[in-house]
Amino acid sequence: MRDLLGGKGANVAEMTRVLGAEMVPAGFTITTAACIAYVAAGRELPEGLDAEIEDALGRLERLAGRRLGDPEDPLLVSVRSGARESMPGMLDTVLNLGLGDETVAGLAARSGNERFAWDSYRRFAQMYGNVVVGIPGERFEEEIARVKAERGVELDTELDTDALRELTASFRALYELPMDPREQLRAAVRAVFDSWEGERAVAYRRINHIPDEWGTAVNVQQMVFGNMGDSSGSGVAFSRDELTGAPTPSGDFLPDAQGEDVVSGVRTPRDLSELGEWLPDVHAALMDVLRTLERHYGDMQDTEFTVQEGRLYMLQTRNAKRPAQAAVRFAVDAVAEGLLDRAAAVATIDPSTLDALLHPTFDQGVQTHVLATGVAASPGAAKGEIVLSAAEAVRAGAEGRDSILVRSFTEADDVAGFHAARGILTSEGGKASHAALVARGMGRPAVTGAAAVQIDIESGEVRIGERLLHAGDHIAIDGSRGTITADDVPLIEPQVSREFETVLDWCDELRTLGVRANADTPEDAARAVALGAEGIGLCRTEHMLLGERQPLMAAAIIAEGESERAEAIAALRPLQESDFEQILRAVDGRPVTVRLLDPPLHEFLPHPDALPEGSPERRRVEQLQESNPMLGTRGVRLGILFPDLYEMQARALFAAAARVPGANIEVMVPLVAYERELEIARELIDRVAAETGFSGYQVGTMIELPRACFQADRIARDADFFSFGTNDLTQTGLGFSRDDIEGRVLGRYIDVKILDRSPFETLDTPGVGQMLRMGAWLGRTTRHDLKLGVCGEHGGDPDSIAFFDASGIDYVSCSPYRVPIARVAAAQAAIARSR
Amino acid sequence: MRDLLGGKGANVAEMTRVLGAEMVPAGFTITTAACIAYVAAGRELPEGLDAEIEDALGRLERLAGRRLGDPEDPLLVSVRSGARESMPGMLDTVLNLGLGDETVAGLAARSGNERFAWDSYRRFAQMYGNVVVGIPGERFEEEIARVKAERGVELDTELDTDALRELTASFRALYELPMDPREQLRAAVRAVFDSWEGERAVAYRRINHIPDEWGTAVNVQQMVFGNMGDSSGSGVAFSRDELTGAPTPSGDFLPDAQGEDVVSGVRTPRDLSELGEWLPDVHAALMDVLRTLERHYGDMQDTEFTVQEGRLYMLQTRNAKRPAQAAVRFAVDAVAEGLLDRAAAVATIDPSTLDALLHPTFDQGVQTHVLATGVAASPGAAKGEIVLSAAEAVRAGAEGRDSILVRSFTEADDVAGFHAARGILTSEGGKASHAALVARGMGRPAVTGAAAVQIDIESGEVRIGERLLHAGDHIAIDGSRGTITADDVPLIEPQVSREFETVLDWCDELRTLGVRANADTPEDAARAVALGAEGIGLCRTEHMLLGERQPLMAAAIIAEGESERAEAIAALRPLQESDFEQILRAVDGRPVTVRLLDPPLHEFLPHPDALPEGSPERRRVEQLQESNPMLGTRGVRLGILFPDLYEMQARALFAAAARVPGANIEVMVPLVAYERELEIARELIDRVAAETGFSGYQVGTMIELPRACFQADRIARDADFFSFGTNDLTQTGLGFSRDDIEGRVLGRYIDVKILDRSPFETLDTPGVGQMLRMGAWLGRTTRHDLKLGVCGEHGGDPDSIAFFDASGIDYVSCSPYRVPIARVAAAQAAIARSR
Repeated sequence: MRDLLGGKGANVAEMTRVLGAEMVPAGFTITTAACIAYVAAGRELPEGLDAEIEDALGRLERLAGRRLGDPEDPLLVSVRSGARESMPGMLDTVLNLGLGDETVAGLAARSGNERFAWDSYRRFAQMYGNVVVGIPGERFEEEIARVKAERGVELDTELDTDALRELTASFRALYELPMDPREQLRAAVRAVFDSWEGERAVAYRRINHIPDEWGTAVNVQQMVFGNMGDSSGSGVAFSRDELTGAPTPSGDFLPDAQGEDVVSGVRTPRDLSELGEWLPDVHAALMDVLRTLERHYGDMQDTEFTVQEGRLYMLQTRNAKRPAQAAVRFAVDAVAEGLLDRAAAVATIDPSTLDALLHPTFDQGVQTHVLATGVAASPGAAKGEIVLSAAEAVRAGAEGRDSILVRSFTEADDVAGFHAARGILTSEGGKASHAALVARGMGRPAVTGAAAVQIDIESGEVRIGERLLHAGDHIAIDGSRGTITADDVPLIEPQVSREFETVLDWCDELRTLGVRANADTPEDAARAVALGAEGIGLCRTEHMLLGERQPLMAAAIIAEGESERAEAIAALRPLQESDFEQILRAVDGRPVTVRLLDPPLHEFLPHPDALPEGSPERRRVEQLQESNPMLGTRGVRLGILFPDLYEMQARALFAAAARVPGANIEVMVPLVAYERELEIARELIDRVAAETGFSGYQVGTMIELPRACFQADRIARDADFFSFGTNDLTQTGLGFSRDDIEGRVLGRYIDVKILDRSPFETLDTPGVGQMLRMGAWLGRTTRHDLKLGVCGEHGGDPDSIAFFDASGIDYVSCSPYRVPIARVAAAQAAIARSR
Repeated sequence: MRDLLGGKGANVAEMTRVLGAEMVPAGFTITTAACIAYVAAGRELPEGLDAEIEDALGRLERLAGRRLGDPEDPLLVSVRSGARESMPGMLDTVLNLGLGDETVAGLAARSGNERFAWDSYRRFAQMYGNVVVGIPGERFEEEIARVKAERGVELDTELDTDALRELTASFRALYELPMDPREQLRAAVRAVFDSWEGERAVAYRRINHIPDEWGTAVNVQQMVFGNMGDSSGSGVAFSRDELTGAPTPSGDFLPDAQGEDVVSGVRTPRDLSELGEWLPDVHAALMDVLRTLERHYGDMQDTEFTVQEGRLYMLQTRNAKRPAQAAVRFAVDAVAEGLLDRAAAVATIDPSTLDALLHPTFDQGVQTHVLATGVAASPGAAKGEIVLSAAEAVRAGAEGRDSILVRSFTEADDVAGFHAARGILTSEGGKASHAALVARGMGRPAVTGAAAVQIDIESGEVRIGERLLHAGDHIAIDGSRGTITADDVPLIEPQVSREFETVLDWCDELRTLGVRANADTPEDAARAVALGAEGIGLCRTEHMLLGERQPLMAAAIIAEGESERAEAIAALRPLQESDFEQILRAVDGRPVTVRLLDPPLHEFLPHPDALPEGSPERRRVEQLQESNPMLGTRGVRLGILFPDLYEMQARALFAAAARVPGANIEVMVPLVAYERELEIARELIDRVAAETGFSGYQVGTMIELPRACFQADRIARDADFFSFGTNDLTQTGLGFSRDDIEGRVLGRYIDVKILDRSPFETLDTPGVGQMLRMGAWLGRTTRHDLKLGVCGEHGGDPDSIAFFDASGIDYVSCSPYRVPIARVAAAQAAIARSR
């Protein structure tokens, strides 16, 4: 009942069943539905809630044998938030609720520990003031510092009862603390609900794609006290090492402390391993509990515990969030230990974290001087010279120089610079900033919000921490850690660990969805194969015609006469042939889907302003400018208008394939809208194949226009395969030009809840996804065995992969570095489907 | 069986049934299927055809009582093409087939008329040589001229038998005429089939949207002879006046002539009215036949007849192609005469011809000096100053000056000039040229291929016929007639005649599809109402923010501070309010669909190059440039990003509506892809309405993105109506940017048979049409009474209107001048549906 009770509420209830009531403090949960009703009613508690709380409280009082507000023996409760998915630190909590001037005396008398009672009261007054009333935390810290200074002590634990009493009084002078514990409870519940709408929580949800409509539950639970002296304490414990996943539990604890102390960092906690020396029985019990919970949940656990006078209470458990290497290690060990079968083990891995294992990183063996840190906004490391504008980045890129684009913040105009630069560094903005969003979308490493970076565009000076640098100086950034250095630190290409290989092998057994890679060079093709790609699902040919070959291609386009044109095209053929041959050799017989020329011709030409005014070249280049190049003369339209270009490519491809034994080629025609377009292109390809004597290839098309989805049954007549180009299908289906929309519109659309993430990152399933399904369905009405692939960037996105798997797609194709992620996501999709 | 037999074959067969075998020469038809097989096999006659022809010939010989090639009494036949739709003059014909050196003697003996026999042989040798062998017609004309000169005669009829014998011999010297009549026949059939693939025929099919796959049939028919002397002749007769539609039959005839002589213009034919004096019985019989045929076919007839020695033979009949005024007159008279009911009468009108009645024309009452003529490429008249480049046309337009764009030929770069100019004049190209296609698409009058126009761009001189003009001089063109003048000829706004009004009234009774108009000004709105629009289906608001108001709009967009921005927007409000008020008054309570701001903002701004380098304005304008503005920050996206603009528009609209009694407004939100976009826009509109105290309006959306069609059920939750924006739906559904594709790709696509016309002219029903149907279907799953309109340019296209009518659309909206066409097309669609 996680949706209704929240993660914590559901887990505490389940934990009570698993561990027994004596090990989990009693309590009740106010549901997420109440929160949603509260928010919808404009922050008004729903009718009847008070009565239900009173009812539940009555049951809790009976179980605990204490009553809230009883001056003799008061029940104290914790009030904690708990959303459907954990949002650590984002939502509010109030502990020790139920204390007041009368009940503190009762607590002191009953526990025989006056200092404990006043420490609890002081804590409550502080948390209530901060969380419920909204007094800034510093105000309380100031008072604590003042009293400690007056008394000449350093640690909170050194404050005696008198000092705590004085502190409590000083806190209560800051605001009015109600003495009625029911009023306290009601206010605390509202505060938790309100925290759902707080800025931090909203920002966190945006980044983590958590819908606003989920709401948070509120868990009211009997307090147990880690602050009752030397045999009490609080801690957090992971069932395995939280960083590496190694089998030894890890964690922290603090003697004589409540849970918040462990997290707050006010005192330095002790390592969990020391618990065994201090309270061996508790340690043993905890180890036992951790094993029990892990076995029950079938996943690594992240728990909170309190020891009250030598007795262990478990306050919370949840599946542990963990870095990729720990997730992989756990999966492998869990199978070895017989805890999980392979499918269940694979299902515990969050594929989106695996990114970190697949990007270049700084060589950790080399000592690096970190100049400053910022937000780890987009993973991976990069180095290059400082450039201060998108234009400079583009220039550097064109000249083959690596650059890092350094800006205060970025906006739409800078996007061209993202493409050209190796990495992005900004002094403002967090994980949800424009720079972070765009960089992640493009797979560029980024560090954002590095406040220690000061930029003076005029002078070209960049101050990073203490160091003064200039445009053109070299820096390096690590977007996985948020660090910046001016050292020439070596970058390490990612290695797939042995455990990761094991997991990936299991994934390959489990999945039914094929995984290929998009690769345009022999190097990328080889890397893709090394990372487990079963072939190349998209080999773009236009990149082979840029760089040093661009002048030849430009000549072919601009040529006045037929013979000049034919000459330029003929000169391109052997170059293209050699490209194809190398790629075919690199994949060793795996299929390679070669896409014929796709982009608008002006991409191969210089900007008209760079040509002499009035020259025929300039006129021709100007003629080729288009108002909407995305929707212009590109794709198969080029093949129809300039058949000699497609013919050259086909000829080069078949010649190359003839020289590579076992070459397995699929010729792909882009941007087909009409069946006749494919028919004409196929005629050309088949004719060239016949002329070169090559056979055994396939011909197919990209399905990337809405019309093609509606006419897929006809288009399939001439296609051996379809490959859904979900990037362009998103652009045309939604009427969104990626270049224009991501910078200008996307942020606002997420703010006003039209979108919860970019449709270029995760497939828009209600729209584009249904177009794809229509295309798949109609295509297979014509050819029941039509091979279906996806070669848009969505092919590397786990959520989208699950959708493709459920839509009858045969394989996805993604960038080489995302191949392992796709293998895991595909396996998980198959597992989910088989359940 | 028109599809199989062609129009002529089917009509001759039916005519034989109606008029009796004695009135129609016997014959047989070789089907279009044979032609298609012939073309598909690479010009190879299909197997078995020879035997079938032999068989049919045998039956014909028995009916005629003569045998082909019989030296005593030879059967002669005509071999005529006949496609499914008439393609006058495009396909080939051979007459008098069966003659040779032996049979000519038999014909002479049998007819007792040696001159007739040799005249027939001479004609056959000429036509066979021209049509079958491919000798240019001039070669034969030269021989005729030579022989006439030698004999000192002027008319063909003055040539005696000897002269004809000499002429025949001279023709036969030009090529080898086979003497075997069966060989002649086979060659003639091939020639007719070949003519289907001839350049002229292909060009004609392109213009008239006739599929290549239809093919032509071949009709082989016993010859009757109009050239047998004084009581013989040939003619064409329309059952009513071919130009006006008045009830008196019209036509031409020539005594002692074969049919080809009437059409060829070698001799000047006599008016049909004179036939009564010459051969009163024949005339009476013909009048009777025309009435019979008209009654049988229920349409005005265009016939060919031959009189052989006082006996009338009908060779052909077909529904008469006629100008719009004749079509309208016939429809009205046919009902009055009881020939047709209203529905049947309306069905006889070709709505595409009505265009001619609805464009401005030269005032025919004013004597105009025509400087030159060209191809009547796009109907309507226009005048303005000569501009020689698109840029000049744009400049003139911006300055409010009317211009005529004069070019040798046009290409993609000139398209902006088409928008800006009043009309187009080119010296090259015909009805299928780029200039003609684009001008017709945009509704701009155009004269193309006016060879007498010589342009010297450098000097700005334009020579038109004898007259030397310069850029800036005024000219006028009539695109319905192809004429050019430098006179300041008054333009007459089109008037709807009394008969046309009658027909339109019937159409309004018959149709179920509503017809509205697109209008942005009070003048257009009033014109639309006068032409029968039931409301305004699309009132674009952006045009109201251009012209003199553009600086205010630009200020609102560029404003740095919030207050400057608010000020500029506030200044726009009263202006917009007055626009709305005038339009609402013009339509007198009819519904007006007002579309909120749609185009990308940069359209309201100067080009960045026009602003000082480095200025903040320039920077802002540059920021707003987009790489694909069609898919960028426009439509409802503007309303989400800049709600104050939409709010201003809504406020102005409601304020205006409050001042106009009975105002009936529908607020339309453009470019919705996500239901939440409409929800947000609707909240804003409803809030503003509540604030201004206005009620009783509707809110709806344009459905113009493929995603919106897939999500129409959700979008309909907040919509009172949908209006399908088929222009943008075509652009996104097909991935075709109209500006880029029409100039560059369309022509080629038609050549290679991917398209048969522009999808922006007639709806792409298999793709865009099905998207529309999906949107309509899903929208009405949510609201069964959801009002559905179409406001793209297809709303004025008869073929598309039939599709909309069959798709459950409630109304179409088109430009005011096309409203009458839409009314007729909608009526015809209803008639077709009810059959």
